[in-house]
Amino acid sequence: MSTSSIKALVFDVFGTVVDWRTSISTQAAEFGVRHGVSADWDKFADDWRAGYGAGMAKVNAGEDEWKIVDQIHRERLDVILREYGFPTIDEDELVEFNKAWHRLSGWPDSTTGLARLKSKFLIASLSNGNVALLTNMTKYANLPWDAVLSAELAGKYKPHPRAYQRTAELLGLEPGEVMMVAAHNNDLRGAINAGLKAALVTRPEEFGDSKAPDLEPEPDFDYFAKDFHDLADQLGCE
Amino acid sequence: MSTSSIKALVFDVFGTVVDWRTSISTQAAEFGVRHGVSADWDKFADDWRAGYGAGMAKVNAGEDEWKIVDQIHRERLDVILREYGFPTIDEDELVEFNKAWHRLSGWPDSTTGLARLKSKFLIASLSNGNVALLTNMTKYANLPWDAVLSAELAGKYKPHPRAYQRTAELLGLEPGEVMMVAAHNNDLRGAINAGLKAALVTRPEEFGDSKAPDLEPEPDFDYFAKDFHDLADQLGCE
Repeated sequence: MSTSSIKALVFDVFGTVVDWRTSISTQAAEFGVRHGVSADWDKFADDWRAGYGAGMAKVNAGEDEWKIVDQIHRERLDVILREYGFPTIDEDELVEFNKAWHRLSGWPDSTTGLARLKSKFLIASLSNGNVALLTNMTKYANLPWDAVLSAELAGKYKPHPRAYQRTAELLGLEPGEVMMVAAHNNDLRGAINAGLKAALVTRPEEFGDSKAPDLEPEPDFDYFAKDFHDLADQLGCE
Repeated sequence: MSTSSIKALVFDVFGTVVDWRTSISTQAAEFGVRHGVSADWDKFADDWRAGYGAGMAKVNAGEDEWKIVDQIHRERLDVILREYGFPTIDEDELVEFNKAWHRLSGWPDSTTGLARLKSKFLIASLSNGNVALLTNMTKYANLPWDAVLSAELAGKYKPHPRAYQRTAELLGLEPGEVMMVAAHNNDLRGAINAGLKAALVTRPEEFGDSKAPDLEPEPDFDYFAKDFHDLADQLGCE
């Protein structure tokens, strides 16, 4: 397809831009040592992450009031710390550890690949993570966004169409002028349902051995790339 | 004062970070030549800008529904083009010319000074300009924001307290952990009323000869600097 109608690329962040599992596992292992707890910290990361989808689904279904991802993470953390046998921990330290999700490292191609894409397109995050989380991560992982946008600004979580449409509206663009870039087919399906274009970038290592990644695009996706440099090549970026 | 409680700096943009008057005057002069109109283009810029405060005040007073600054600019443009004797112009060209406000140049210290401030603080815009306008300007003027925030995300224009408080909330900070940086005392007064800290950075050239700039801080402002490098020095940035 021609790239000329695409004005902006918006990116899923967890898994697509940053390696949340390794980053959380590493920080959790340090936290465990400090409190005398041993565990499979990759599994701990998966267990922590497991609260995320359910928490957002409740919000989108109207069963829960708007709740930012920091809060969803915190509620899940309180549950799994008990399951893993952690002792009672000071509130200040819990607040700080919950911000482990603000300190996630990019994939090796993230910063340099985004910089190439930025030379031709407006680039912005479009994550379910809240703005504070994304802003701190932007600084931590050196992500060169033109704008930090979030489902928080729509009041609905992806894959609800409002999350995508509000993002296009905030950028002053038609949905069809915006392409969603993600490593997850369900996110891209949501984007297409909302009128956006879709690019699958595969992240085969995202889930380790715990879950199969999406490695094949669906037939109506617009682009399919193995990383951000591959996408930049296909989109004609320098 | 100690800088240790300040986590984020949020910046007024029009006048404080970018030289809107020269940028608009230059683009308007080119537009005038194209349509065979001669005028004092600095005055044209001032006249265009004059619709801004009144348009926002109506929104804050509830006399008008939420209206983004792009729309406020456009309504005023339609009025002044008639006043200046322009012929009928194609809609597409008007849409494009209205985006002159997305293409404003920074002051000489803006990009480098912001980069220094960014090394120690989270930095974000807090403008009444809409997100699309600010995002395009960020790219145009090479402004290294960690996040592009706007009164649009609060649904109230500065100096309404909600604009400042919503910004702190989106950054996950208490109002007192955020310092507003602006060249305008009324904006800083609004910030203080909302619980933020305040730094006046003077921009003596903002209004040319048409209006006196604010060159003296009020007694309860926290910082007073002549430009962003001076502010970076005072805040202990490298």
